[in-house]
Amino acid sequence: MIVMEQPSALRLFVVMQGSVVPRIIGKIIGVALLSALILLIDLHLVSLPHVSISAMGVFGIALSLFLGFRNNAAYDRWWEARLLWGAIVGDVRNLARHTKIFGLPDAARENILSETAAFAHLLRGSLRGDDVSRDVRDWVGHEPAAEFASKRNPPDAALRSISARIGETEKDGAAAGFGQMTIAQTLAALGNAQAGCERIATTPLPFVYSLLVRRTTYLYCFLLPFALIESTGWFTPVFAAVVAYVFFGLQAVTNELERPFANVQNGLALNALCRVIDISVAEALGREPPEPLATTNSILS
Amino acid sequence: MIVMEQPSALRLFVVMQGSVVPRIIGKIIGVALLSALILLIDLHLVSLPHVSISAMGVFGIALSLFLGFRNNAAYDRWWEARLLWGAIVGDVRNLARHTKIFGLPDAARENILSETAAFAHLLRGSLRGDDVSRDVRDWVGHEPAAEFASKRNPPDAALRSISARIGETEKDGAAAGFGQMTIAQTLAALGNAQAGCERIATTPLPFVYSLLVRRTTYLYCFLLPFALIESTGWFTPVFAAVVAYVFFGLQAVTNELERPFANVQNGLALNALCRVIDISVAEALGREPPEPLATTNSILS
Amino acid sequence: MIVMEQPSALRLFVVMQGSVVPRIIGKIIGVALLSALILLIDLHLVSLPHVSISAMGVFGIALSLFLGFRNNAAYDRWWEARLLWGAIVGDVRNLARHTKIFGLPDAARENILSETAAFAHLLRGSLRGDDVSRDVRDWVGHEPAAEFASKRNPPDAALRSISARIGETEKDGAAAGFGQMTIAQTLAALGNAQAGCERIATTPLPFVYSLLVRRTTYLYCFLLPFALIESTGWFTPVFAAVVAYVFFGLQAVTNELERPFANVQNGLALNALCRVIDISVAEALGREPPEPLATTNSILS
Amino acid sequence: MIVMEQPSALRLFVVMQGSVVPRIIGKIIGVALLSALILLIDLHLVSLPHVSISAMGVFGIALSLFLGFRNNAAYDRWWEARLLWGAIVGDVRNLARHTKIFGLPDAARENILSETAAFAHLLRGSLRGDDVSRDVRDWVGHEPAAEFASKRNPPDAALRSISARIGETEKDGAAAGFGQMTIAQTLAALGNAQAGCERIATTPLPFVYSLLVRRTTYLYCFLLPFALIESTGWFTPVFAAVVAYVFFGLQAVTNELERPFANVQNGLALNALCRVIDISVAEALGREPPEPLATTNSILS
Amino acid sequence: MIVMEQPSALRLFVVMQGSVVPRIIGKIIGVALLSALILLIDLHLVSLPHVSISAMGVFGIALSLFLGFRNNAAYDRWWEARLLWGAIVGDVRNLARHTKIFGLPDAARENILSETAAFAHLLRGSLRGDDVSRDVRDWVGHEPAAEFASKRNPPDAALRSISARIGETEKDGAAAGFGQMTIAQTLAALGNAQAGCERIATTPLPFVYSLLVRRTTYLYCFLLPFALIESTGWFTPVFAAVVAYVFFGLQAVTNELERPFANVQNGLALNALCRVIDISVAEALGREPPEPLATTNSILS
Repeated sequence: MIVMEQPSALRLFVVMQGSVVPRIIGKIIGVALLSALILLIDLHLVSLPHVSISAMGVFGIALSLFLGFRNNAAYDRWWEARLLWGAIVGDVRNLARHTKIFGLPDAARENILSETAAFAHLLRGSLRGDDVSRDVRDWVGHEPAAEFASKRNPPDAALRSISARIGETEKDGAAAGFGQMTIAQTLAALGNAQAGCERIATTPLPFVYSLLVRRTTYLYCFLLPFALIESTGWFTPVFAAVVAYVFFGLQAVTNELERPFANVQNGLALNALCRVIDISVAEALGREPPEPLATTNSILS
Repeated sequence: MIVMEQPSALRLFVVMQGSVVPRIIGKIIGVALLSALILLIDLHLVSLPHVSISAMGVFGIALSLFLGFRNNAAYDRWWEARLLWGAIVGDVRNLARHTKIFGLPDAARENILSETAAFAHLLRGSLRGDDVSRDVRDWVGHEPAAEFASKRNPPDAALRSISARIGETEKDGAAAGFGQMTIAQTLAALGNAQAGCERIATTPLPFVYSLLVRRTTYLYCFLLPFALIESTGWFTPVFAAVVAYVFFGLQAVTNELERPFANVQNGLALNALCRVIDISVAEALGREPPEPLATTNSILS
Repeated sequence: MIVMEQPSALRLFVVMQGSVVPRIIGKIIGVALLSALILLIDLHLVSLPHVSISAMGVFGIALSLFLGFRNNAAYDRWWEARLLWGAIVGDVRNLARHTKIFGLPDAARENILSETAAFAHLLRGSLRGDDVSRDVRDWVGHEPAAEFASKRNPPDAALRSISARIGETEKDGAAAGFGQMTIAQTLAALGNAQAGCERIATTPLPFVYSLLVRRTTYLYCFLLPFALIESTGWFTPVFAAVVAYVFFGLQAVTNELERPFANVQNGLALNALCRVIDISVAEALGREPPEPLATTNSILS
Repeated sequence: MIVMEQPSALRLFVVMQGSVVPRIIGKIIGVALLSALILLIDLHLVSLPHVSISAMGVFGIALSLFLGFRNNAAYDRWWEARLLWGAIVGDVRNLARHTKIFGLPDAARENILSETAAFAHLLRGSLRGDDVSRDVRDWVGHEPAAEFASKRNPPDAALRSISARIGETEKDGAAAGFGQMTIAQTLAALGNAQAGCERIATTPLPFVYSLLVRRTTYLYCFLLPFALIESTGWFTPVFAAVVAYVFFGLQAVTNELERPFANVQNGLALNALCRVIDISVAEALGREPPEPLATTNSILS
Repeated sequence: MIVMEQPSALRLFVVMQGSVVPRIIGKIIGVALLSALILLIDLHLVSLPHVSISAMGVFGIALSLFLGFRNNAAYDRWWEARLLWGAIVGDVRNLARHTKIFGLPDAARENILSETAAFAHLLRGSLRGDDVSRDVRDWVGHEPAAEFASKRNPPDAALRSISARIGETEKDGAAAGFGQMTIAQTLAALGNAQAGCERIATTPLPFVYSLLVRRTTYLYCFLLPFALIESTGWFTPVFAAVVAYVFFGLQAVTNELERPFANVQNGLALNALCRVIDISVAEALGREPPEPLATTNSILS
């Protein structure tokens, strides 16, 4: 995730950090060259058929419809993913409070919270393919870390381990049932957030949209010069390049936001979120919390 | 569900997997031929009335409104269906944890979780018409499988059977009430997800939209050539074909997403989701989990 | 609700079932005749002022904005109404399970579930004005049916009667409190769904939108011929009729979806949903369930 | 709130009830006169600069964007306000049931439900500035009514008074804790609905939108005649008046819906909703319920 | 937050309070001057290439798409932030009621509610960077205030302190467990609201949108004069200025709403909301409540 001040108007056009231009510069130049070529052929060689710019308008509305829909859907996925991780942060803290309210023994409480922090790291690992073995080991030790890693679904294994501990802790005692029930609900919230993250990670936007949108964008950019040569004249290559920038740019953004857990510039800062969880758990256990993660080159990983 | 890398720009126009082109190629060619015919008649036989392309613009906005609305509504249904199945995955795991937290006897726990896995398969069967008898038998054995199958609503019967087991298990014991209550809530969540799936499966988008959108698309594609002959000249058939591709393509996509449980290319991968549930239940019971389902020809069924 | 296969392209234009054409055919013909009249006057009698088609485009965008908003709002109401009834189906089944989990005596359970089924019929009656006395009597007998019917809010009376039964059932017993609490929550969910249905039924879309949208549509269709005579020529009446079909058609659809409980073609199939509830309750009580409701002439009532 | 049948096409243009025309007639006439003036100057005095109608189209899209956004936001506020009051209706009934399920003594139950009805009236009073002292007195008597009225937040005081009663009622008894907990949750739901209503009432749409939208509408209507004189000729004043009707009309609607609790024609019918609550509480207490509120001159207050 | 009556039509164009004009006046004048320059060069020096206004329309639709999306996303963030704070207000009051219902001792109740009020101030401090030490001291005294301030996450520390108190209060007593559980849930709601606020505060809209939207707006305003010189003539600078006002204005609004916790004119009135909480807690404790915060120069801070 890029964390950066808005650049001033002067610096706006040279900022490359976070820009999609590097990724689509080839397409922009391609469209500009094609436009220039068509313009030259039309002027000096043979008169090409002209497409009315109004006809392109109809096409443009349809394309906007596609791009707008896809952009909204991708952003919604990105924001929902952030929301789920925000819920995980909240529920980890809830767990720290609930274990206090219902007076679990200190040892059990420490084990449970450590495994909860490990859960967050394991989830990050399974969503982003990061190697999280060190973070998990730091929280729960070698053996449980290896045990979790050997499962098909390591974060689920961590939650199961917490459940087993809850089931064993204080089988008697007046408030036992209330504590079990409250903590069971908080674990359920963590499990549901995990299922939500898996849903986003394993279910891409329907592939057919990708094809439809990308093909339509190419067709549009190919037909555009035939519409511009009449109405825009020598500006045609510039104008075509700008339009290509807008449409291919939006598409490139969409491709990134669609996969919010991927390790890309505009992906979610899962490392930083796991660090927030590390801090919260450490403070709840009365330990010295680590530093929050800082940006590297304006990027929070 | 299609799981596939984005094709490169070069391969983009030849990819047929996941494309809607095969289904609408007849319509595209039809519109192109009609355009060519109208163009020829207008040039060589008799001057046809021309429709202003701006007038088509007004029409195009209305059509975009319809298609955009229908596309959003269909995608929302598809995504909500995925969300409900994601919730089922999460709640099955919750059930595995809750039975542990409240210390149910192992035999009861095994029966309950097996029937929960059977519930997922039965729900898939009732939503998609798949034959799930083998999967159900593998989890619960012959007799209960036949018992469930004999009911009007087999997944509901599975949940009822779990309820009866909960009611019988440990009628005494300090934490009994808490466990019953927590598990009752989790079963309610599964039941609500089932009701949500049935809602989507039995309530199509209002039929009148289909008629309105399809008729309007046909009228638009029929009138379009009269608008293009003047402003687009010899490009008319190409342009009309492209517009037909865009509008009929979006409509074909919408028709598929509208029925997310159908066994079509862009339908939900219910088999794969049931396998995820099989794995989670197997791991919770300490058994060897099966392999996750792999894609066949880029399709996850 | 219309349940029907998508008609083939050939049959598409003759299907009348579910079409809005019969209701707006007068307006379509009126607009076509007006256009023809204006065209004739302009050609043969006196030159009428022409409106630029681009100016109509601005108008058309505003009208699309209105119609699009109203269509979305109406569809949202319709879908929320369906969602609430889907929740009722789910919660009735939850109640059947909860009464089992907490081991209520069979007689109490039967009374409670019967009254729940009666609640669904009474709600349908109060929302749609149907006479539901027979269905209610079939479930709870003559006297309670008359008692419910004598209240201002019969479905609420049914829920109150269930509450009284719960309050009386097993005042002692270890798990009594848990059962009461869980069932109280399920009843609350049913009550909230009822309140949601009443909200939709008693709060129409703000009347002022109706006026604004309808007036604007009429003004648009009246001004349109003046814009088309220049740019569309002899096609004017056809084109005006098509535009009238699109705009008046969308408005007619919207009018129906806005009142999802009304007994119209595109209204919700409350009878079929009540039958689903009848089946679920019957199966939960171990009785022979009735047949699901079939469509009559492609309509599910 | 206006409750009225859709007027027929013939009566549509003369209906004034619920119409925004009376409020914006001055602006419409102003725009029409300005257009006529500009047209006359352009024809007979001095040639004015003409703005291309296409240029206005770009402007019109931006304006539609603003108005559409604001309209959606205002309608969402209105509908959310209705949703919150619908939830209050549901939760009052839930409270009536919960006090029955957990067997509270009749006297306590009567006090609690009376104060709940008073809560609804007090909330209406605080949101709409109505004098509700008589309604509150009718439910709880003089002294408590004066006590509530003396607080900064009277509805919150009513809920607090209910809480105190719950805390005192049946401190012993097996099911006491369950009842307290369930009722506490219902009171929390009422409190959250109150906080939601206060949120809507105290947080207007960002003021800057009002300025931006209103200024843009004025600029648009001022520039429009310069665009129309060329393309629309003598129709200019009519056309400008229609456009002014559409844009100023939408804005006037939005201004009303934005403040759903205000005592305006399209505001929510809080009196009628409070009466629904009066009826529900009366029936739950076995008293004779009052009549539902009828419309006065098609308006439900 | 600006709280102000709608200005009359006459005063509308001179109101500066809450207007974005002062912030973008430079850009508006720049665009107007550029337009005038291009117009003069085109008329008197050398004929510049003209861009068709229809081509700009296509561009304008894409730009509207971007701005509309960004505006919606920013407003949603702003409104969700308000919603979360509304939930905090509601849950603080819930806590006041729950401590009464479950009969906590007066001293414990006073401590808990004071720390809850402190939580709200600490959250405001951490979100907006305000110095809240005095407010916190007024509620909880010097030592705890310093203790909270020394933590990485002060509001979380306040909630943890409340949890510890709950855990210690009345370890015995029949209703202890119910009270603990209910209050634990209310604290969880407060903690989730805090996590939600942190989510909005630490996750800006994807940076790439800012770049894309701002660059596109600049390009549009730079190309616009080339399109206007032909169709709009001497009106070009006026028209370009108006368009610049609309597009840059919307962008400036969006930039503010995107960060709802910032101390800007259109930011949320966190001080006023904390005061509402102060009042509610004071009334719940039977103390003299402070005055509600008044607007200063139409601004509620």
